[in-house]
Amino acid sequence: PPGMVYLVGGGPGAADLLTLRAQRLLGEADVIVHDKLVGEAVMAMARRDAERIFVGKSRANHCLPQEEINRLLVRLARQGKRVVRLKGGDPFVFGRGGEEAQELAREGVAFEVVPGVTAALACAAQAGIPLTHRGVARVLTFVTGHTKEGRLDLDFAALARPGQTLAIYMGITTMPQLLEGLTSHGLPAATPAALIERGGTPDQRELRGPLAQLVAQAPGWVAGGPALLVIGEAVAEAALVSAARDVAMC
Amino acid sequence: PPGMVYLVGGGPGAADLLTLRAQRLLGEADVIVHDKLVGEAVMAMARRDAERIFVGKSRANHCLPQEEINRLLVRLARQGKRVVRLKGGDPFVFGRGGEEAQELAREGVAFEVVPGVTAALACAAQAGIPLTHRGVARVLTFVTGHTKEGRLDLDFAALARPGQTLAIYMGITTMPQLLEGLTSHGLPAATPAALIERGGTPDQRELRGPLAQLVAQAPGWVAGGPALLVIGEAVAEAALVSAARDVAMC
Repeated sequence: PPGMVYLVGGGPGAADLLTLRAQRLLGEADVIVHDKLVGEAVMAMARRDAERIFVGKSRANHCLPQEEINRLLVRLARQGKRVVRLKGGDPFVFGRGGEEAQELAREGVAFEVVPGVTAALACAAQAGIPLTHRGVARVLTFVTGHTKEGRLDLDFAALARPGQTLAIYMGITTMPQLLEGLTSHGLPAATPAALIERGGTPDQRELRGPLAQLVAQAPGWVAGGPALLVIGEAVAEAALVSAARDVAMC
Repeated sequence: PPGMVYLVGGGPGAADLLTLRAQRLLGEADVIVHDKLVGEAVMAMARRDAERIFVGKSRANHCLPQEEINRLLVRLARQGKRVVRLKGGDPFVFGRGGEEAQELAREGVAFEVVPGVTAALACAAQAGIPLTHRGVARVLTFVTGHTKEGRLDLDFAALARPGQTLAIYMGITTMPQLLEGLTSHGLPAATPAALIERGGTPDQRELRGPLAQLVAQAPGWVAGGPALLVIGEAVAEAALVSAARDVAMC
């Protein structure tokens, strides 16, 4: 039988923030090709005898370049396997799922894409931060804080405009550059901000405060693990949710 | 026992794009307070003897103003009920969940927020459109096409900038205004775009083409139901997914 590849969003990390469709596909897969961002709790939901292939993709640990991941998916499908390519969050939000989808289409391999709860939504829900809010934030912008040859190549003039909430993925190391870029284009240094670590998992931690102070205090606060930075007036509209949380103010 | 309110993202409509956490809470709820955007397939997952309260919120059918919904949630919780406030998509992305959370916090009612797959992610996955894509779109912007007293009050200068994907919620009736605003601020009229109806459900339909042509053809194409508009060069990077789809080109 011909193989099939599912590009599946694994959500933010908590097993119960997986979709029912993702859970079913994990239970049926012959092979799971997974990232570093996919948590153990999610991997535990895979068919017990499924083959597991770790392809890395943490910053320091590029186990396999993207092109080799693409070719691996094609090869597995051609062996007639039912492949789940499991990604943290959503496959099409900073997940390079587009490149995998294009390769599969080019090579004539059948595939489907299964959306997932992306980190910003999970972080915000658990922190009680409305990403959009009447009269405060009518635009929600997702950006990556990854650098291109050491430089943060962002359109700061657009990002600094009022009335929006910024959700910045993978931005920990570039926070000082980000602060400089945003404030030099007019964003007030006191704009409410929250830095959220291990968002959407039971270990979520949060540091909240005016952007400039938060950036100054962050190095002493971070404990490692994926982090998301949320910036905008909507952060000040947060309502304390009832689940136990680790929140620091600065 | 004290009541509890869960603000729950019901996802895009397909029952299996609900999260496991949302499914569990629906099975445990005493009362479900739900919107028009929540599909029947999702409502069918609720505890059979749960009370169901429909609070409308389609454009033409404001059954209950937001303030009354807020008060209803407080009242039900004070009766000791386990309340699920079920919303289409994600509670904090154009869902007015922030206002409900603030009211609950103000009134001392315990609550939690459960994220969901927002429409843009589901539409893009099913259409094969990468919302971010290397070298093409590094920013993803969510906007609402709702008007304020008949005017589309958007920051077109920011939205027209290159290198981003725009996902426009609830924008069907304001598409001509949107086109005018974007193109007059420099967005090429031929920018690739897709209009997606009933996204993330088995009935997803899609119209794809250069923005100006798409806006011209849309009135004859729409069949009703919620729609999402995606604009940006990333739309041209779409790879045809294998699931059966209804795609028209213009």
